[in-house]
Amino acid sequence: MAESEKEAALPPKEEFSDWYNELLWMAEIMDVRYPVKGLYVWYPFGFAIRRSTYSIIRELLDNSGHQETLFPLLIPENEFMKEAEHIKGFEDEVYWVTHGGKDPLDVPLALRPTSETAIYPMYKIWVRSHADFPLKLYQVVNTFRYETKHTRPLIRLREITSFKEAHTVHATWEDAEAQVKEAVELYTEIYRRLAVPILRSRRPDWDKFPGADYTDAIDAMMPDGKTLQVGTCHHLGDNFAKTFDITYEDTDGEQRYAHQTCYGISERCIAATLSIHGDDKGLVLPPEIAPVQVVIIPIIFKKGAEEVLAACKDVQARLRKAGVRVEIDASDLRPGAKYYRWEMKGVPLRLEIGPRDLENNVAVAVRRDSGEKEQIPLPEIEAGVLSRFEAIHESLYEKAKAGLESRIFACSDLEEVKEKIQKGVATIPWCGKRDCGLAMEDKIGAGILGIPLEQEGNSKEKCPICGEETGTRVYVARTY
Amino acid sequence: MAESEKEAALPPKEEFSDWYNELLWMAEIMDVRYPVKGLYVWYPFGFAIRRSTYSIIRELLDNSGHQETLFPLLIPENEFMKEAEHIKGFEDEVYWVTHGGKDPLDVPLALRPTSETAIYPMYKIWVRSHADFPLKLYQVVNTFRYETKHTRPLIRLREITSFKEAHTVHATWEDAEAQVKEAVELYTEIYRRLAVPILRSRRPDWDKFPGADYTDAIDAMMPDGKTLQVGTCHHLGDNFAKTFDITYEDTDGEQRYAHQTCYGISERCIAATLSIHGDDKGLVLPPEIAPVQVVIIPIIFKKGAEEVLAACKDVQARLRKAGVRVEIDASDLRPGAKYYRWEMKGVPLRLEIGPRDLENNVAVAVRRDSGEKEQIPLPEIEAGVLSRFEAIHESLYEKAKAGLESRIFACSDLEEVKEKIQKGVATIPWCGKRDCGLAMEDKIGAGILGIPLEQEGNSKEKCPICGEETGTRVYVARTY
Repeated sequence: MAESEKEAALPPKEEFSDWYNELLWMAEIMDVRYPVKGLYVWYPFGFAIRRSTYSIIRELLDNSGHQETLFPLLIPENEFMKEAEHIKGFEDEVYWVTHGGKDPLDVPLALRPTSETAIYPMYKIWVRSHADFPLKLYQVVNTFRYETKHTRPLIRLREITSFKEAHTVHATWEDAEAQVKEAVELYTEIYRRLAVPILRSRRPDWDKFPGADYTDAIDAMMPDGKTLQVGTCHHLGDNFAKTFDITYEDTDGEQRYAHQTCYGISERCIAATLSIHGDDKGLVLPPEIAPVQVVIIPIIFKKGAEEVLAACKDVQARLRKAGVRVEIDASDLRPGAKYYRWEMKGVPLRLEIGPRDLENNVAVAVRRDSGEKEQIPLPEIEAGVLSRFEAIHESLYEKAKAGLESRIFACSDLEEVKEKIQKGVATIPWCGKRDCGLAMEDKIGAGILGIPLEQEGNSKEKCPICGEETGTRVYVARTY
Repeated sequence: MAESEKEAALPPKEEFSDWYNELLWMAEIMDVRYPVKGLYVWYPFGFAIRRSTYSIIRELLDNSGHQETLFPLLIPENEFMKEAEHIKGFEDEVYWVTHGGKDPLDVPLALRPTSETAIYPMYKIWVRSHADFPLKLYQVVNTFRYETKHTRPLIRLREITSFKEAHTVHATWEDAEAQVKEAVELYTEIYRRLAVPILRSRRPDWDKFPGADYTDAIDAMMPDGKTLQVGTCHHLGDNFAKTFDITYEDTDGEQRYAHQTCYGISERCIAATLSIHGDDKGLVLPPEIAPVQVVIIPIIFKKGAEEVLAACKDVQARLRKAGVRVEIDASDLRPGAKYYRWEMKGVPLRLEIGPRDLENNVAVAVRRDSGEKEQIPLPEIEAGVLSRFEAIHESLYEKAKAGLESRIFACSDLEEVKEKIQKGVATIPWCGKRDCGLAMEDKIGAGILGIPLEQEGNSKEKCPICGEETGTRVYVARTY
């Protein structure tokens, strides 16, 4: 699609916002020209990344006892309005269907902003006994938010196209708590597979999911030092169970309210992956999610062209057999133009094969992440490629992890916090009292991201507002 | 989920409508108790069938040069209203979003009933040159119809949850015609993989897709003799290209209107598969889409119980390694109750292993489709199971094909047509004139399904209305 238009240079990654927008366009991830604000179109190349990313998510969910299901998009107003706190959190953002054909509907229908109120009336019917637990279902769906803020592809959307939401039911509060922990570990593992290091923290009470007892969240750090919330895990207590009358018969024959959790992840996982690994030349993709994992560039001279092409096709066939997604670029472009094109698309490994390489029985492998050039003997091409995929993945993760850690700043006062959050995440002691937290946020001009799930030590530090001693440091960050 | 409730017997398949509704419930395909008419919930078991079915669809599309993409659900009113004929076909069925939060929207947004008007404004931007052709994209999405007719799960829905729609662009009318042919073959192949025989015909002009030059359709025959439209392929000519201004530069440098096709398939493919193969005991699933392909039933006596269980686990592990989805039912139920449960779920093959079988080093395999019992030597269990999967698939297809063919009745007058369509599909000569076609439909009290894409011969028969000689017979059927 109009490749020729896309030969302009990408802005440097330092200018993150411009870089991001141009990258999504030049690498053919999303097209922003759909005629409604906040709704975007997935290019096939972007969608191929979406497919492999969500395969990972499904695999990890399936392997941990979750089952996929699908509930309707449309939620009748009366169900949607049942849970008072929940609705307060969403009512300004809900799209309403009011007409079918030319007729007004008897009951307006909400486009789900999230599916608690679609799913829990069914859970009321389905859940009968303690023997039904744990019930662990998930779906991957489109959800809708009438965003009034600035929208941005993959990050802030009116149609979230790829919302994976899990909804679990348990007997006790403690069982649900354990499930939230499992979910946090699961999400950590998902991001590990995307080579994305993350922060794990409990949101302050005023920032939790509407209707939840608490919210544990996963954040990634974007290149500009702002954090992007890329996963949330909510302990719902028995709040929704009481509203939707979800009860079970316990071992002693008593009817009790169930306890629930829900946790979600959206295409923000792709935004984080692309943003963290990409560079001035374009995408840098972890091999597992790259639509094209290897591109073979035949280096053609007049003499020996046929042999080179035949060798390239042989390598392609062998790699395909080994499960590698591999293309040959035999187009008429200069090698430089080919490199530009495939670097922009983030292809993890480029193999160059020319007459001299054939003489030496090797291919020259060039890593997208590091630019490193190495020879791989052709008889060992499969193992050589697969082992480099692992090395690339690990190297992407380690580099991103070092980058994240170098931008977490332990601060001792609020002035320092204000300065450091321009570059990354600050930590600061907090006594845990709501008033102190809100006062800090007010003074800093940015929010408390959360209380890290892993606290480093037991230092007796002081809350910068009330001076009370505390062993807790919290993350403070500018956020998307 | 409340298994115990589901021990009532299924109505006989002869009472198709009752059988269908009960089957979807008892086999845990869909739950119809969602509190909005025409919207249903996929049970995890049903969704697992959906997953494997749509894997087949994706595989065949990907392998024939299609690319998956994703466009927004919401279509602004002005785009939606552009194509006059198209809109006439849909305007009574469209759901409208009119409010975001508490505010009325500036432009009402339609929930896509189909995506021409969402996709083609982008095609206008994307398509530039003959070199861009063929452009072959598809998406799998939820679409919406404000149905006023009787709704029915998987068949007539207000939210079609699983609409696979492809949209292609070509230079010439002939290229688009060839694409429609490819699509018909592709759909035939998809149904072959589901062991579902189909009818292929061109819809009469008054029944084509709104805005198309013509519509070729795929129909399955349901157990009650009514046909279910399970796929349509539309030649759009340059009608939409003119409306949405989709032009390309031809080899001679001239700007020309593009030619387009679109073709769709929905979860009706699952309705047909379940309905055609199922029997009085429940689902009968082709192995490729069965969530559980093999269930192992340990036949336990006091003596030798451990050895039997160990052997079952060994067989399970070996089959899993061979890529088979296999479960052991080691529950406390009587064998009869276990058989009932897994037969209801359509598991293609049951393996029974008891002490005597171990002595003989065999498992007893029972086919769900035929009830046939055979011994498989344990050392060859993988090959034995996989070859039976093939046999089951072929046998399901052949049986369904014979059933379909036996219910196509060549009729010589309209009275006979009226009688035969109570049992299946009638064929009758038709001169091709619109007036005669409509008059026939009126006299029969049922519609012309279509003109078969493959005509049997060149017999000089007579149109029952005008008496003109014709070599064409058409299908007449009661339809869903």
